Amino acid sequence: MTAAAVPPTRAYRRLSVEERRAQLLGAALTLFAHRAPDEVSLDEVATVAGVSRPLVYRYFPGGRQQLYEAALRSASDELILCFAEPPVGPPTERVSRVLDRYLAFVDEHDTGFSALLRGGSVVGTSRTTAIVDEVRRAAAEQILLHLGRFGAGAGTAPGPRLRMMVRTWIAAVEAASLIWLDEGKQPAAAELRGWLVDQLLALLTVTAASDPQTASVLEALLPLENAEGPAGRLAERLVAVADGAGHLLSAERSVRLGR
Amino acid sequence: MTAAAVPPTRAYRRLSVEERRAQLLGAALTLFAHRAPDEVSLDEVATVAGVSRPLVYRYFPGGRQQLYEAALRSASDELILCFAEPPVGPPTERVSRVLDRYLAFVDEHDTGFSALLRGGSVVGTSRTTAIVDEVRRAAAEQILLHLGRFGAGAGTAPGPRLRMMVRTWIAAVEAASLIWLDEGKQPAAAELRGWLVDQLLALLTVTAASDPQTASVLEALLPLENAEGPAGRLAERLVAVADGAGHLLSAERSVRLGR
Repeated sequence: MTAAAVPPTRAYRRLSVEERRAQLLGAALTLFAHRAPDEVSLDEVATVAGVSRPLVYRYFPGGRQQLYEAALRSASDELILCFAEPPVGPPTERVSRVLDRYLAFVDEHDTGFSALLRGGSVVGTSRTTAIVDEVRRAAAEQILLHLGRFGAGAGTAPGPRLRMMVRTWIAAVEAASLIWLDEGKQPAAAELRGWLVDQLLALLTVTAASDPQTASVLEALLPLENAEGPAGRLAERLVAVADGAGHLLSAERSVRLGR
Repeated sequence: MTAAAVPPTRAYRRLSVEERRAQLLGAALTLFAHRAPDEVSLDEVATVAGVSRPLVYRYFPGGRQQLYEAALRSASDELILCFAEPPVGPPTERVSRVLDRYLAFVDEHDTGFSALLRGGSVVGTSRTTAIVDEVRRAAAEQILLHLGRFGAGAGTAPGPRLRMMVRTWIAAVEAASLIWLDEGKQPAAAELRGWLVDQLLALLTVTAASDPQTASVLEALLPLENAEGPAGRLAERLVAVADGAGHLLSAERSVRLGR
């Protein structure tokens, strides 16, 4: 069959129920991405999708609330897929790739992302909160996966301090994303990502200082890192910071080590 | 006047408008502290305050929503007062005292604190969100105050990276508090506080590695710290972590320093 024999795409061809639903969700996500959910009307969703208002109601009889929750569900599923990363190579590079995809998602969903996490919207309910929490849990599981072994036995579960550490880091990433959106997406996404990876390494290190399990995780993780990757670059810059602090750090350290 | 001459407190003495309002807010705060706001009825507030339901409505004609917002306003003002700390002594000790008061507040307000920050409640509105944001801003200002000088000139304002750092730390503290409540207030508040101060020091250090202003803040801050305080104790434990990591850290550092 030649190219000429392919029938032209018909703009008004009949969509299947699933296709139509996806089309309406796509229109809704476009609108929710750039305006607060309370400001988006079903009329606009119908206009963007090029369909009638009654058709939107046929698919989403619960109106804006139902459409919002379905759009949020769809965006959350997409975000959870972004977290998936093969457990190979230096862990900080894996986390960097996950963060790059996460920040691209934040960039794309913009106003909708802020409105959702800031709360105070009429469409925010215990169901939308549950969806957001599910995303946070999925993120925590993925990060724990890349941190690797949790103790002597391969199957040992992460303890409360390690879990708390990962969840506070995720909260910090979320907060940084919201500030980033507020500040016109400054600094560049790559710079923000680098700083967030540095934060994770810093958190791991100080948590290792008081939690034996985190200490063993860090010990197992360091040999997987290299001088050219995020951990190596941070170490190099930290040496410069120590140099800058000069006699203060040396004095402190010598007191501590009794030298 | 002897103690016997003091007139006995009359349980039913007529309260002033302000006293009555404070009494109703106190009753509301007690109830909101231990149950989700959606589950608290005005009847219960009236019962706890020992007054009639119509009296509650006379003071709060907007019903539960108005009472909730007024109670939140009152609790937020109390929390903001907790942040105040004289700018003397080692900064990590000042931050520790602020965190102790903050965690005591979280402990006291418990379920209400979780419900407020988790969102998804019918009483959550753009007004309640604005009150919470005001508390976060006040916390950030206080932390920046204790971090001290922001550059060469005494009046130099904190730059975007330093502000972002403080706000992400505050988000991490909030997240840790919520997890702490979920986990039956484990670990002990003093241990959690110590770890949160360690996190701030870690964040300062890695942010100093990429932001000159933060580097100068850290440099000015270290001489105010001592070996017995939080910074000294962290330094000591970090040396132990480095010892534990053994040849890995040494090898890494020698590569970095070309030794």
